[in-house]
Amino acid sequence: MIVTSEEKQRLVSANRILARENVVDAFGHVSIRDPQNSGQYIMSRSRSPELVEFSDLMEFALDGEAVDSQGRVVYGERMIHGAIYEARPEINAVVHNHSLAVLPFSLTATALKPAIHVAAVIGEEIPVWDIREHFGETDMLVRTMEQARNMTAAMGASSCLLMRGHGAVIAAQNLKEAVMIAVYLQVNALVQTEAMKMGEPVFLSAKEIELLCETQFSPLAMDRVWEYFCARAGVDSV
Amino acid sequence: MIVTSEEKQRLVSANRILARENVVDAFGHVSIRDPQNSGQYIMSRSRSPELVEFSDLMEFALDGEAVDSQGRVVYGERMIHGAIYEARPEINAVVHNHSLAVLPFSLTATALKPAIHVAAVIGEEIPVWDIREHFGETDMLVRTMEQARNMTAAMGASSCLLMRGHGAVIAAQNLKEAVMIAVYLQVNALVQTEAMKMGEPVFLSAKEIELLCETQFSPLAMDRVWEYFCARAGVDSV
Amino acid sequence: MIVTSEEKQRLVSANRILARENVVDAFGHVSIRDPQNSGQYIMSRSRSPELVEFSDLMEFALDGEAVDSQGRVVYGERMIHGAIYEARPEINAVVHNHSLAVLPFSLTATALKPAIHVAAVIGEEIPVWDIREHFGETDMLVRTMEQARNMTAAMGASSCLLMRGHGAVIAAQNLKEAVMIAVYLQVNALVQTEAMKMGEPVFLSAKEIELLCETQFSPLAMDRVWEYFCARAGVDSV
Amino acid sequence: MIVTSEEKQRLVSANRILARENVVDAFGHVSIRDPQNSGQYIMSRSRSPELVEFSDLMEFALDGEAVDSQGRVVYGERMIHGAIYEARPEINAVVHNHSLAVLPFSLTATALKPAIHVAAVIGEEIPVWDIREHFGETDMLVRTMEQARNMTAAMGASSCLLMRGHGAVIAAQNLKEAVMIAVYLQVNALVQTEAMKMGEPVFLSAKEIELLCETQFSPLAMDRVWEYFCARAGVDSV
Repeated sequence: MIVTSEEKQRLVSANRILARENVVDAFGHVSIRDPQNSGQYIMSRSRSPELVEFSDLMEFALDGEAVDSQGRVVYGERMIHGAIYEARPEINAVVHNHSLAVLPFSLTATALKPAIHVAAVIGEEIPVWDIREHFGETDMLVRTMEQARNMTAAMGASSCLLMRGHGAVIAAQNLKEAVMIAVYLQVNALVQTEAMKMGEPVFLSAKEIELLCETQFSPLAMDRVWEYFCARAGVDSV
Repeated sequence: MIVTSEEKQRLVSANRILARENVVDAFGHVSIRDPQNSGQYIMSRSRSPELVEFSDLMEFALDGEAVDSQGRVVYGERMIHGAIYEARPEINAVVHNHSLAVLPFSLTATALKPAIHVAAVIGEEIPVWDIREHFGETDMLVRTMEQARNMTAAMGASSCLLMRGHGAVIAAQNLKEAVMIAVYLQVNALVQTEAMKMGEPVFLSAKEIELLCETQFSPLAMDRVWEYFCARAGVDSV
Repeated sequence: MIVTSEEKQRLVSANRILARENVVDAFGHVSIRDPQNSGQYIMSRSRSPELVEFSDLMEFALDGEAVDSQGRVVYGERMIHGAIYEARPEINAVVHNHSLAVLPFSLTATALKPAIHVAAVIGEEIPVWDIREHFGETDMLVRTMEQARNMTAAMGASSCLLMRGHGAVIAAQNLKEAVMIAVYLQVNALVQTEAMKMGEPVFLSAKEIELLCETQFSPLAMDRVWEYFCARAGVDSV
Repeated sequence: MIVTSEEKQRLVSANRILARENVVDAFGHVSIRDPQNSGQYIMSRSRSPELVEFSDLMEFALDGEAVDSQGRVVYGERMIHGAIYEARPEINAVVHNHSLAVLPFSLTATALKPAIHVAAVIGEEIPVWDIREHFGETDMLVRTMEQARNMTAAMGASSCLLMRGHGAVIAAQNLKEAVMIAVYLQVNALVQTEAMKMGEPVFLSAKEIELLCETQFSPLAMDRVWEYFCARAGVDSV
């Protein structure tokens, strides 16, 4: 029980951090797999991440059914989270966002790739998925498990996926890593965008990415980042 | 009476929100059609939106005459609002602004078009109107009903219009939608501007825009956006 | 006496406003001609504008000599102000700044020109002056009356001048106008910079600029702008 | 003792200033050579600069060994600092950061060069060092004295060095100068980036840089900058 409570408190913090770092705005959401029941995940009711409180957290089955909705309105795109937890047992946290710096890469043929060492965590390949390809013209929201499973298949084993004209999805082994990846996906996008205007940027090599993921996910880096994010967002560091 | 008071309180909030989101600065204004008298509209006396208070709100006839001015200074461009209410009975809220991200599209032949799903609400076509075309060289302000009617005709049934070297006009069925459109017009401009530097962006299709407008104007999206905007602007969510 | 005190209070406010709007940073300064002695001007001792207080204000003769220095350190480039007051009797306020948005126009052959209506106040022509042309390789600071007079001659009757690799000078009939011009010089630079990346911008015509200066310097616009600037900077609106 | 205490308080302030000016984020660090023992340097334990407090400061031998670690976690890249102090007796302060504005210049063949007068302090030549060249594919962190010495050799007598896909190193005669250089390296990067999009910028000449370094490091400029930085960061000006 105590573990879950701390994990849930951290999920509230993650919502605030992602808002503070402008990774999410009115829209976007973050979830964790229930640490005590791998067939369920925890996320807020439908609410902007900046405003999410402990009491907003709800439990969902992987198919998106609320365990006990109590009449609360739920996110229309929660299926994104369930389909990833269903397909990838190693994943325990998912972020969906519309970061302005990332969006241009979803609209053009230009690939978003890690160029700066702190952003190695975004991974070597970031697929772009277009809902139009399999589901025709829709309102572009991932509303069904069928759509979410198709998206998850396009994502493969990647940490990040871009959705054409819509946003990004980040999947990670734990919540802190998911937040770190979401933030540095945005940072890398900003730097790469400006670098491309100057010339052909040097990107990280596959080996550098591999070695850097170890470094960036180590306690030395993660503890420093998490304390920093929490302080900026005005939340307790748990 | 109570309805009107709440509507007016929301109009004050809209002023603050548009300032907080940098859609307006020292200049710009927002109005609503009087819910109890469709031949009148309500807007602030001449004051920067960030500073507008309840007691600044005034009533105007559609021709721009203040119902009871009490000697207050009024916005020089209020005719923009009256001409739209006069010509388009379905419109109940109007925003005029000089958003820096939007202005470049008013100065060049590059069309501003919805590329990201949350911005579908700006509509498929955004005309650009140049006061110089019909009225020659002026101080570019829309000062007369004749000018405002010409502008309104150029706007047609669109939600947004750009004014060359000047700014934008947004018209919507209600105030919350007008604010949402004004904010996402700016967001789309920012994303499109960067995407165009990378390559040819994919824009939303007509069908996607239609379906997304339904989604974005639904309570699920509107309630989340409005709560978020109000929290950021430090105003009560009404 | 009371007039002067209010004018000096407004000068303190102008310092804070220019800092709040990012027109000045650690460097930059603003002065007024002494309303009671046209052969003197008033400006702060050497201090960043964001920190200037009433007691920092000093009197200078037009040649840059402090009337009563009381041992205070003075701005190294105060000659900019004196030379303009000396040559242009209609000018009563001067701003010098290093606005980041304006600087690129001082480094390249691209002319900064008013494209948006609120920025008409910057004037049709903005000369670029390079101290190297007449004074060879220096530390680029305008340290002598000879340098400042050369700069003033290059400025002619313009409201604004760019200094290569250094910054801008703004001269106006009164302090509020000087602040407004300094802010909108920056705003126009930002918009023009982005517009040029999209295509060839339409600029304001000479006639539009003339008519807009009347409009923008009228009480309707000036009062609104000044109240807004003061509120944002947290200073009393005098 | 008192001298050291004041120097250490200033080091805390420098951490906060660099964070406030966005020169560092979660990562980055700043050190001083111990004023009482030139074979040691002082820097924080592993912590984001925004959060560094007096009690976080530690002493290190030039080879990176903590004098009295008390079990505290230390920065993985502290060798950067030691190797510079070892090779350059005139250097008494070092900053390492990942400034987003600077990073694009580390990724492309475009040289970062001083174009604006306040940034002359960054020096005429800014080498770019790629750890891959001598050490193959690594996690890109400067972890050993061998790597740090190689980097220091590439830096030569320069004030600044860029590290490919990683960040920047700044070395100066004292802490205030190091902070000033780090901030204006970023400012120059921002201005140069935009100027290059408009045309070929005019850069400062070698003579201008030399004369400007004298000016910018003089008390007139340094005192004004330091008071400003401290006020913005909310720290006492010592």
